[in-house]
Amino acid sequence: MSDATPGRGAGEFAAIERIAARFGGAPPGERWIGDDAAVVRVGDAVVGVAADAVAAGVHADLALTSLADLGWKALAANVSDLAAMGLVASRALVTVSGPPRTDLDELYDGITACAAEFACPVVGGDLTEAPALVVSVTVLGNAAVSPPPVFRSGARIGDRVWVSGALGAAAAGLRGMRAGRVEPLLAAAHARPVPRPAEGVAARELGATAMIDVSDGFAADLGHVLDASRVGCELEGLPVVAGATLEDAIGGGEDYELVWCAPPAVNMADGFARRGLRSPILLGVCTGDPACRLLDGRPIGAEGWRHQLG
Amino acid sequence: MSDATPGRGAGEFAAIERIAARFGGAPPGERWIGDDAAVVRVGDAVVGVAADAVAAGVHADLALTSLADLGWKALAANVSDLAAMGLVASRALVTVSGPPRTDLDELYDGITACAAEFACPVVGGDLTEAPALVVSVTVLGNAAVSPPPVFRSGARIGDRVWVSGALGAAAAGLRGMRAGRVEPLLAAAHARPVPRPAEGVAARELGATAMIDVSDGFAADLGHVLDASRVGCELEGLPVVAGATLEDAIGGGEDYELVWCAPPAVNMADGFARRGLRSPILLGVCTGDPACRLLDGRPIGAEGWRHQLG
Repeated sequence: MSDATPGRGAGEFAAIERIAARFGGAPPGERWIGDDAAVVRVGDAVVGVAADAVAAGVHADLALTSLADLGWKALAANVSDLAAMGLVASRALVTVSGPPRTDLDELYDGITACAAEFACPVVGGDLTEAPALVVSVTVLGNAAVSPPPVFRSGARIGDRVWVSGALGAAAAGLRGMRAGRVEPLLAAAHARPVPRPAEGVAARELGATAMIDVSDGFAADLGHVLDASRVGCELEGLPVVAGATLEDAIGGGEDYELVWCAPPAVNMADGFARRGLRSPILLGVCTGDPACRLLDGRPIGAEGWRHQLG
Repeated sequence: MSDATPGRGAGEFAAIERIAARFGGAPPGERWIGDDAAVVRVGDAVVGVAADAVAAGVHADLALTSLADLGWKALAANVSDLAAMGLVASRALVTVSGPPRTDLDELYDGITACAAEFACPVVGGDLTEAPALVVSVTVLGNAAVSPPPVFRSGARIGDRVWVSGALGAAAAGLRGMRAGRVEPLLAAAHARPVPRPAEGVAARELGATAMIDVSDGFAADLGHVLDASRVGCELEGLPVVAGATLEDAIGGGEDYELVWCAPPAVNMADGFARRGLRSPILLGVCTGDPACRLLDGRPIGAEGWRHQLG
């Protein structure tokens, strides 16, 4: 299961583990449940594929954002999941389940805008009636790439930890809107979060050993990488977006910035600059004690958003 | 959009057409919105992909069938969509959106049973909270096959029309359960409908020109093929399952039998027998007047199940 939508409680992780156990391990060359996306062989092809659902009232408060924003977010979350493996989503399928008279045109305004921005057209899907609006999106991207897709589990002791940009904008934007303050940049970051496929490809090509997108929250998502890689970390100076708090940056989800690890010899800043990308930010180093996860000398809180399902 | 779930009203077809228009035509070698599944190129690969959602209370009455049956149906509908192109689903992604304390283990008992039956393991997906239970499934299958995938649009005048088995079981089963009568075979056909990938592959390899699965109802689904192919038909003796009515067979959905067209020279019965498959049933012939669609000399009713979304 991918983690691009907020909301992994302990029960949910346990449910995902039970589901994964039903289907056994992936054959060589594939990656199944337990990362941002799956990598599968289909015939002679190797395909990256991710699926996430967003629900009105859960992932988007329609009193604060629009149906179009919900549509954008549903596709963007999946583009971000493939980006977190260093892959580019190129085709999408969308199932919309909702009450009669759901404004599909407005919903699709947002989906179409995101599809155009990231060159990922909708090629199929389904429309069905349901008591509440749920938009589920699947994206596919080529995974026959070299170097191969980056998983969560590859970080090694001594690897540097990088982030693609400052954090906290989405959480601060939501907080501001709930308080009746609309700060345009922060509100936009919440309404139309921007996935980072170009940054993900760059990190993969430059030698990233592990990667994830910030969807549940920095602390929770970094925690997935450290858990999977069985390393700890010592970080300093988490970059926080202007107008956001450190708590927004650590605990807020849906920033869709990427966090990755890479050997110390890799010059990420130069590599990103050559590609015309924003300079990534060095956060620190992977250490040998998986239980020791420090930011500015203090343990990193691990609170992501939590739902109850599972 | 695929049509594997019941419920295409006129408004829904119009909505699907508006959605398709947003994304333009598929490039050569691909098939996007408007068939049972999509065929896409991803890198050097050619992949068949379908996505459908099922909602509790809409596609399955949980007072009559179980969560496990809903899980089976969600995956089976998608396996059937690829079968309708003559393709075999080999990998699935599942997003489950539902209320807290949804019994995921029971739901996954049905998904797992279907995945095992059709060798289509779940490799990823998502769990999210939502006010109502929606299960959305995407399946992938190799589409780099020869002869190529079979679409709805290829039937020609003079082609014979075939069906893979007798119809009406799912509708009769549901009707019986609602009336408090449980006829085991019919009830099973409703609770655990059986997709027909082997029959789909056989029909494709033997020369099918157009194909669809019976999901909305025979009349509606055959209508999609005739519309897309711009032909009419003259049919006789629609096979009806014991215990079902002709109305069940014509208008009931979710039988998942396949209906296809093929040139008269093709000996389908021999080809199926060689593969150890049930003998398909010859229904009639494609004719030149698209407005003339006859069964036993009378116009075929076009009533599928109808929802309101869109």
